[in-house]
Amino acid sequence: MRTLTGIQPSGSLHIGNYFGAIKPALAAQSEGDCFFVIVDYHSMTSLTDGPRRRANTREAALDWLACGIDLERSVFWKQSAVPEVCELTWILGTLAPMGLLERAHSYKDKVARGISPHFGLFAYPVLMAADILAFDAERVPVGKDQKQHVEMTRDLAAKFNQTYGQTFVIPEYESRYGVATVPGLDGQKMSKSYGNTLEIFGEEKLMRQKIMSIVMDSRTREEPKPDADQNTAIQLFRLVAPEAVAADYEARLRAGGLGYGDLKKALFEHYWEFFAPFRKKRAELAADPAYVDHVLAEGAARAREVASSVMKRVRNATGLD
Amino acid sequence: MRTLTGIQPSGSLHIGNYFGAIKPALAAQSEGDCFFVIVDYHSMTSLTDGPRRRANTREAALDWLACGIDLERSVFWKQSAVPEVCELTWILGTLAPMGLLERAHSYKDKVARGISPHFGLFAYPVLMAADILAFDAERVPVGKDQKQHVEMTRDLAAKFNQTYGQTFVIPEYESRYGVATVPGLDGQKMSKSYGNTLEIFGEEKLMRQKIMSIVMDSRTREEPKPDADQNTAIQLFRLVAPEAVAADYEARLRAGGLGYGDLKKALFEHYWEFFAPFRKKRAELAADPAYVDHVLAEGAARAREVASSVMKRVRNATGLD
Repeated sequence: MRTLTGIQPSGSLHIGNYFGAIKPALAAQSEGDCFFVIVDYHSMTSLTDGPRRRANTREAALDWLACGIDLERSVFWKQSAVPEVCELTWILGTLAPMGLLERAHSYKDKVARGISPHFGLFAYPVLMAADILAFDAERVPVGKDQKQHVEMTRDLAAKFNQTYGQTFVIPEYESRYGVATVPGLDGQKMSKSYGNTLEIFGEEKLMRQKIMSIVMDSRTREEPKPDADQNTAIQLFRLVAPEAVAADYEARLRAGGLGYGDLKKALFEHYWEFFAPFRKKRAELAADPAYVDHVLAEGAARAREVASSVMKRVRNATGLD
Repeated sequence: MRTLTGIQPSGSLHIGNYFGAIKPALAAQSEGDCFFVIVDYHSMTSLTDGPRRRANTREAALDWLACGIDLERSVFWKQSAVPEVCELTWILGTLAPMGLLERAHSYKDKVARGISPHFGLFAYPVLMAADILAFDAERVPVGKDQKQHVEMTRDLAAKFNQTYGQTFVIPEYESRYGVATVPGLDGQKMSKSYGNTLEIFGEEKLMRQKIMSIVMDSRTREEPKPDADQNTAIQLFRLVAPEAVAADYEARLRAGGLGYGDLKKALFEHYWEFFAPFRKKRAELAADPAYVDHVLAEGAARAREVASSVMKRVRNATGLD
């Protein structure tokens, strides 16, 4: 069972990303063959700054390696190191009805939000289909917002197989993400667009400030808080501390006598400790850029081997070879 | 001055293709650097038969080599042997406003003619832009119907240069085709869609029949024909016979005394003789598939060298490298 995960190189990660997506994605490594790809071609649909893309791609590589990509089990590379996906995008596109792409939620939503539509946004699902099909991926864990894209991939794969003969594995959508609820510092869902994030690899003093700024109500320390399980800090506590510790803090808050300041201080300590091994790993990687280059080059070579063999089938079926 | 010409692998060529497009395209060889590419990726927007595409591509290679591609001066290859153009298609697409592509005549026309629109048709001008820009082409001789595509290429090149820094040569459209008037066997413009074609490499008996079937009026042999210059056979005569010979036949027709049957017999002889060296060359090439493979492989290597160097600039500017 081969799982393929696309990684957007979109800047610094927050713990909502970690618990919502990165952790479940990495968990797939204990279940079989995993392919992780940093989708720098995709990033061109929203970013037109070359140096920024180069830096973001590098950051994403450090982040995901630090978070636990297991190079013994997984293939990890940068999308543009295997340009075969662009060739497959063209080929799949010649079989994609305009209506299929016009119905894509992500395109319609962006247009509705007033983003001036360009072709890259429109073509996005075709490149995503190519990403999946070029590597014979069988399982694609994505968020709900991307589910339709996997369905489009299945449609295109089936259309190709029907037109040119059996060539592609039809992948399955897998719902794996977004199960963990990660509130932001203001209690809404943690999201970069709400400006309420707590970073995985943030600077210590700033992260402490952020946690201390979590909005609380005006009840006194002594008052019992029967709704302690709804408290933002408690919810974050459950993610970064052992279950018993989080339960203890929740009970103390419920009973009364635990101040919000102390609660947040303790939360910071657990958060900081939880990510300590990640930070250490990331610092080591950041200090050795040649090693990271080597890792990505090796991943690209392995990914390219798979894509080349798929493209051989495709080119033969379509009469390009 | 580098000229780039795209060749559609769309089956057997007629003399309208030759005098209208192939001959003027080949004439550019005496004016500078020429790149000729058989656009098999483009053919996917209208043909979904793999073996047919493979055969058409091979036929196009034989046809154009037989017609006079000069391998000392020109680079000649099959588009899909340089898949970098697909990568560039993706990249240019992220800068193409949807409105630009929606305004493309060729797309609008096909939709208006009831061809169910698919993404390949819509994306066609972006691939064409990539074809041109990936080879630093300066001059693109195309028919009037493709002029807008060259303008779109110029727009995309300028947009890229403006966004990511000076990278692309801005190509010029050149009107070179369709100057020669080539009537079909029924007097309308010669065109495959009218079923009135005379092939360059047709079988002798069939071609003779075709020429003998050219529609004439009912005037007798003896009658003078003051409109001899409008006669379809005379117009074709001018293309395949020395000027003096064509003028002589025209004069005899004008004066009266020359029968249509004799005129058509003479036309056949000149047509057959005109293309004799082409036929000979084509037969030699068809008998030596390994040589043709070698020619295309060598052309692909030369084309790829240029495209790689352009893509190096592109990847660096966009932060993919």
